[in-house]
Parts: sequence; C-alpha cells; structure tokens
Amino acid sequence: MSVLAELSAGSGTYRLRRATGDDLGPIVELLAADQLGATRESAADLEPYRRAFEAIDTDPAQLLLVAATPGGEVVATMQLTFIPGLARRGALRAQIEAVRVHEQHRGHGLGREMFAWAIAESRRRGCALVQLTTDKSRSAAHRFYDRLGFEASHEGFKLRL
Amino acid sequence: MSVLAELSAGSGTYRLRRATGDDLGPIVELLAADQLGATRESAADLEPYRRAFEAIDTDPAQLLLVAATPGGEVVATMQLTFIPGLARRGALRAQIEAVRVHEQHRGHGLGREMFAWAIAESRRRGCALVQLTTDKSRSAAHRFYDRLGFEASHEGFKLRL
Repeated sequence: MSVLAELSAGSGTYRLRRATGDDLGPIVELLAADQLGATRESAADLEPYRRAFEAIDTDPAQLLLVAATPGGEVVATMQLTFIPGLARRGALRAQIEAVRVHEQHRGHGLGREMFAWAIAESRRRGCALVQLTTDKSRSAAHRFYDRLGFEASHEGFKLRL
Repeated sequence: MSVLAELSAGSGTYRLRRATGDDLGPIVELLAADQLGATRESAADLEPYRRAFEAIDTDPAQLLLVAATPGGEVVATMQLTFIPGLARRGALRAQIEAVRVHEQHRGHGLGREMFAWAIAESRRRGCALVQLTTDKSRSAAHRFYDRLGFEASHEGFKLRL
C-alpha cells in the first residue's frame, strides 16, 4: 500500500494512496453520505461496487484514490481517468469523477491538496487538459473549482439509460 | 473494415464503422473545420494525431467511429469512451467526445442516427448513463442533445495545462 503523497491540510495530515479492495466500504459510505448520492447509492450491498472496483483496478487508464488519516480512516476519495483523443492535436485529457470529502474533514484544504496532486499527476502523464462535471445544484463545488482555475466553459449533458 | 450499421438520413445512406489509420486525415479535417476547432487543430502535421490514434485504437475502452458515404467519403466522426466507476452503484458510463458532421451532411438526421446507434451500443455494453459536455457557445448542439433526451444537469469545468 504505497503512499503517493503526504498532504497537509489545516492542522491535520493525510496519506494519499491508490485505493485497494479493503477501501470499498468506506468509499461507498462517502458516496452515499453525499446530498445527491443518498438517493443513488446503497452501502447495504457491496457486490455491484466490487465488480466496478475490479474493472477500475485492472484498467491502467483509471486511478482511484483515497486520502486517509494517520490512524488509517479513509476520509476522502476521487477517481481519475486518462482519456486519449484526437481533438486538440491528439491531446490526452484527465477526467475527475466521484470526488468526496468526509464532512468532518472539509473546509481546511484537503480537497484543494488532493486536486493539486491530481493536476500535477495529469501534467506528469502528459495531459493537456483536466476536466470534470459537477451537478448544477452544487454551488459550493462550483466556487471550489473556480478558485482552482477551472473554467465553467461547457454544458454537461447526461442521459440515464 | 467491418460495417457496424447502415444509417439512413434524408435521401442518403451512410456506413458507420470503426475508424482506421487511413481515416485520420479526414477526421482531423472534420475537427479543424469546426468553429472552435479551427484555432485548436492543425491538419498540416498529422504526427501528434497518429500517436493519439494508436492509443485510442489499442484501448478496448475507446471506440472511435466514422460515418462514410457509399463512395467512401468520411463525413462524420464521434468517439465513445466506456468508463467504470463506483458512483451510482458501480455504474459503467459511456462518454461521447469529438462529435463532428461535415456541414454538407448536416440537417437531415445523420447525427441523430449516429447517436441512436451510440446509445444502443452503450446499453448493450451495460452502461447506466451516457454523458458528454459541449461548449456553452454551441447553442445548436444544446438543442440537438435536448431533443435526444439528454438533460443539461451539470456544469462542465475545464482546466488547460
């Protein structure tokens, strides 16, 4: 379980590392604790999540991250996907999905530190662009991404099947 | 060069198929002919595109499509990416990028037919969601996605590196 970075946020420190199968329960709890996730997730049955985790874990284009306290409690997560494309002169792009920080660990810069690492890693892998979408109702998230230098230049369309 | 679908649009028919290396020139011309692409693409040097094409072509999560006339002229393109994730009970999602239809082949339903195929293929692969982002200035595209049943529920943030 190799640590990718030691992150300092407020008076706390966190270890950023690649998620393992053992992190699945805590990650799903973070997803389910979210205002929108509450209706979409169910930690009662981890089986569909476990299948998805296998697909993520065996795909070199995916990087599922967790941040844990020194005591080992998983308190934040994010997923990076590296997508090759022809547009923008064959630019590789990094896409960030499923960002969650436990509410008791918000507001002192942990999310910002995780994004700083993710952006640096995207640059290291040769990406020309980092992109994400966030629900229009998440106004605090919009301010957060604005401050990080992201531009809300696009409409994000979704079609549920 | 196997045909995935025969598409009828207006009085024309088109063959939808997986892109090959020989399609690279025509695809880049489609990308460069676009209002926004004009400043971002350069068909004069195909080398960066060729590297990106290799990455796309060897990745089973990527599906780069072209639609061609019966005479073999490539007149439209789109890229599908299949992304595993934990959110939404471990949902696989399909993402669509780099959609372009030659201006002389617009307005009689070719784009709609390509999307119908892409949505059916996403369903066949078990996706719970199809998603895309489009520049806020592309108002005709917004109406197109609205009509297809997509919901503009998200803000699309981009950070250029």
